Amino acid sequence: MTYRLHNFFRSSTSTRVRVALNLKGLDYDYIPYVLRNGETWTPDYLGRNPQGLVPTLELENGTSLTQSLAIIEWLDETHPEPPLLPADAMGRVRVRALACMIACEIHPLNNLRVLLRLGDQFGADETAQKAWFTHWVTTTFDALEETLQNPETGRFCHGDTPGLADVCLYAQVWNNRRFDIELNTWPVISRIFAELDALPAFSNAAPPKQPDAT
Amino acid sequence: MTYRLHNFFRSSTSTRVRVALNLKGLDYDYIPYVLRNGETWTPDYLGRNPQGLVPTLELENGTSLTQSLAIIEWLDETHPEPPLLPADAMGRVRVRALACMIACEIHPLNNLRVLLRLGDQFGADETAQKAWFTHWVTTTFDALEETLQNPETGRFCHGDTPGLADVCLYAQVWNNRRFDIELNTWPVISRIFAELDALPAFSNAAPPKQPDAT
Repeated sequence: MTYRLHNFFRSSTSTRVRVALNLKGLDYDYIPYVLRNGETWTPDYLGRNPQGLVPTLELENGTSLTQSLAIIEWLDETHPEPPLLPADAMGRVRVRALACMIACEIHPLNNLRVLLRLGDQFGADETAQKAWFTHWVTTTFDALEETLQNPETGRFCHGDTPGLADVCLYAQVWNNRRFDIELNTWPVISRIFAELDALPAFSNAAPPKQPDAT
Repeated sequence: MTYRLHNFFRSSTSTRVRVALNLKGLDYDYIPYVLRNGETWTPDYLGRNPQGLVPTLELENGTSLTQSLAIIEWLDETHPEPPLLPADAMGRVRVRALACMIACEIHPLNNLRVLLRLGDQFGADETAQKAWFTHWVTTTFDALEETLQNPETGRFCHGDTPGLADVCLYAQVWNNRRFDIELNTWPVISRIFAELDALPAFSNAAPPKQPDAT
């Protein structure tokens, strides 16, 4: 089975799926798209993903899976080792909630199409876009830092095994660099990011390491 | 076991959890918060939910669960009947992706704190907020409508059993009414909403039926 990952090096949701594939030890072909050039708005791509968003994970039989969290849950169900979620329900709800803090409260507000819309509708320039982006990162990272100050946090977001929350955290910290947001004010997040970045499954999925990185 | 649901009648994420609790046949105490009055920013509430967001599901032992999608997955794991996700992995990834289209691409852009931020940062008035809100609903509902034109769609989003995607769809359609968005242009979504609204588990969770509705 060879997967084809339709994605973009700087896309945070693409980074998440690259990490998950690496953690599961799965090979994939890297199919890059330049979002700013509208390369995901072709009839062919829209047939795979009607939202025109990345990533899309294409299976060997041609089936396309969309939405990074759904893809990662699918990978975890179909390739159970190593697990990306704890075995116990209380651990699972904690990890999913941490992941959703990032996936539902930061990234949706800060991706390229939203920044472009701010420009179109409100004339937001780079400075205004940075203020917007930083506001949402700070609002949620402040709460995430507090939530992680918990005995269930270990070397990683939950215990000593990297999982779904770590995947989202790692991708978001890379995304923050788009606007030079430093991690100094969030020591737990900063420490976990450093731990993750020392693991090849994570660092090999980082934006600068991808073939389409500019 | 009696749950305590900290929530707000008009909150779309609160509606999702109310529907899920109803589908599982679980009783809960309804604890209302007026978001515009900052009632979720008290030290007590922030101790339960450092994001100051609703909903929070409080368990009998005092544990607080946050983030609606994580809470619903937890309810489904701990109260398996009736299931809110299909039994097969391909069905599960489809349902989770449909849910994420709404939960990660519409609602995060359109909730109260985002509309307030548009006002603060860009001076967006009610008309500009409506244009913003409608843009994101339309963008994703167009893609959702196309995705639902699929043989796997049945009476509901996936087959003939209501599940996680339906929970998100139902809550979003109610949320759309905040800005009078009609469903006419999305016939499949419109049909599914009508099917859901005929089920007491859904209709009893609708915003106007809640004790704090104004």
